[in-house]
Amino acid sequence: MFTKKCHSFFESRFGFRKAFLTTSCTDALEMAALLINISPGDEVIMPSFTFVSTANPFVLRGATIRFIDSRSDHPGMDESLIEEVITPKTRAIVAMHYGGVACDMEKIMQIATKYGLFVIEDAAQAIDSYYTYSDGSKKALGSIGHLAAFSFHETKNIISGEGGMLVVNDPSMISRAEIIREKGTNRSSFFRGEIDKYGWVDIGSSFLPSEIIAAFLWAQLENLDDIQKKRKQIWNSYWLRLKDHEGKFSLPFIPSYASNNAHVFYLVYPDIEERTKAIEDCRTNGILTIFHYLSLHKSAYYSGKHDGRELPNSDRYTDCLLRLPLYFELTEEQLDKVVNVLLNESRE
Amino acid sequence: MFTKKCHSFFESRFGFRKAFLTTSCTDALEMAALLINISPGDEVIMPSFTFVSTANPFVLRGATIRFIDSRSDHPGMDESLIEEVITPKTRAIVAMHYGGVACDMEKIMQIATKYGLFVIEDAAQAIDSYYTYSDGSKKALGSIGHLAAFSFHETKNIISGEGGMLVVNDPSMISRAEIIREKGTNRSSFFRGEIDKYGWVDIGSSFLPSEIIAAFLWAQLENLDDIQKKRKQIWNSYWLRLKDHEGKFSLPFIPSYASNNAHVFYLVYPDIEERTKAIEDCRTNGILTIFHYLSLHKSAYYSGKHDGRELPNSDRYTDCLLRLPLYFELTEEQLDKVVNVLLNESRE
Repeated sequence: MFTKKCHSFFESRFGFRKAFLTTSCTDALEMAALLINISPGDEVIMPSFTFVSTANPFVLRGATIRFIDSRSDHPGMDESLIEEVITPKTRAIVAMHYGGVACDMEKIMQIATKYGLFVIEDAAQAIDSYYTYSDGSKKALGSIGHLAAFSFHETKNIISGEGGMLVVNDPSMISRAEIIREKGTNRSSFFRGEIDKYGWVDIGSSFLPSEIIAAFLWAQLENLDDIQKKRKQIWNSYWLRLKDHEGKFSLPFIPSYASNNAHVFYLVYPDIEERTKAIEDCRTNGILTIFHYLSLHKSAYYSGKHDGRELPNSDRYTDCLLRLPLYFELTEEQLDKVVNVLLNESRE
Repeated sequence: MFTKKCHSFFESRFGFRKAFLTTSCTDALEMAALLINISPGDEVIMPSFTFVSTANPFVLRGATIRFIDSRSDHPGMDESLIEEVITPKTRAIVAMHYGGVACDMEKIMQIATKYGLFVIEDAAQAIDSYYTYSDGSKKALGSIGHLAAFSFHETKNIISGEGGMLVVNDPSMISRAEIIREKGTNRSSFFRGEIDKYGWVDIGSSFLPSEIIAAFLWAQLENLDDIQKKRKQIWNSYWLRLKDHEGKFSLPFIPSYASNNAHVFYLVYPDIEERTKAIEDCRTNGILTIFHYLSLHKSAYYSGKHDGRELPNSDRYTDCLLRLPLYFELTEEQLDKVVNVLLNESRE
């Protein structure tokens, strides 16, 4: 059974306590919100510069979101700003590892312990990426928080079309995770022969993907090392070709405690006009470049609910960050063309 | 794009106003609960004799469920009992078409209109099944309520592994359904070129299945008529072979306004002992027979929340209903063997 093979792979390779494939990363985060019993009035801390699916699962359970600004040197959440928004209603911190680059997990786990909060890693982009502790020890992203969510959406390093995974590292949550994933029934216990019929014992939903999806994912996992090697080559090529042009734009920064899983290569332009010009130059040359995200605290849905704090770095990445093409099949020639266009060296 | 091909097929063949493939029928019902804005304290009416996924999506939004008994002649909900549980808090009726056999939709829609309620068809089992109105006109199940949910789980007539579909018949809900399905963003409008970037505008989740799933489903839809023909042959064979043995068990009843889509062939035994004996006889002969469901109003999760009404027919089907093997590949010989075992004619 491919689902089980995938679970075993993830658990043994990355030290995840318990893996559960889901239909999407969004669904994995919905399971997380159910598992920690998020209820109306609870507060959850997360970056504003992230995808809507980081926030929606908690909003659906009635939580208020306290959005945190990004770091000045990286689009990830500024860990030094977390403590000031903690209140007695705070229940969880969602650590979104932007571009697969680790948040400072040692700091975040310390804060969580101090205030009794849950930590959920939004590891949508963070497969095969690591965090190095101050004592030199190293752990895979997704193995550190109480819970973690991964994406295998077609835009990710490892894909299954649509698909995701919940990792449960807190052993006390494992049996309830099984139930919530099986539509609130104790069907898993039934199949293990622990009970003689299964019934409705809790809230839940249908979070299981099809075996077809798991089989697709398994084929990707069998090639994980090749995929990662190729992506890192591409990432390094961009880096080498663009590093002498800082000033025109800035290049990705990777903190010393983080690894690079080559999920994304992005540039940060000085302003939105420069970025828009770069996108246009690329488009003219048949190259699709993408920007993301739009600060969630300024979204049509949440701006009226936000507490009013300014989050200038989040807004800057919203306006100035540009993702370059990065996929397994990208050739050296294609990469050359992208670089030439970005450096305005393509116009004959 | 297979998803779009599937949508067009369903809309043109069955008269569905708008079809949206989802990752499961459960997820389709979750979309329905979001679309009609179910909130804490709202009441939703549905049968007790159904799968947990009929109830969970509404419970997740905070609704109280008013469970209705089954009909004495059929496991479907007894429509005559609906009005007595309607209160000012009632928001919706979930009409679950048991075994693909229509609820009395004319009656249910009249009640809904009288009290201003939404009707959601739980058409998980009801693909290619129909309701005939008292004036002789006919409509496909799933095209009648404001919303309807279908399942393509591997146990259904038409499958995609895990998969489902929301049908939106109320045109005022279509654009919001697009947004909720796209994680609360207006991404669909963006792809149609109606807006120049997409953002967070509403609550939502990731309800889209992978294209792989849609491709699998499409191959099934191309063979819908063959699949249905074969299933009806099997169903009719069971009927012909077993109809002279009523008394030992009762056979499926199909009201005159309903069609038979051959989703399930079931027997209802006089008591649980007889059913248990039949299951054991089958098991001894290498035949897997399944019973379902367990009355939800008596479940571990809901019994303490139920209003105390007795639902004797639901309990009777819980104890006495048995499903016989019914799948496309079932041969005449296999069917003979099942029948012989059930009639105790197999023992040489």
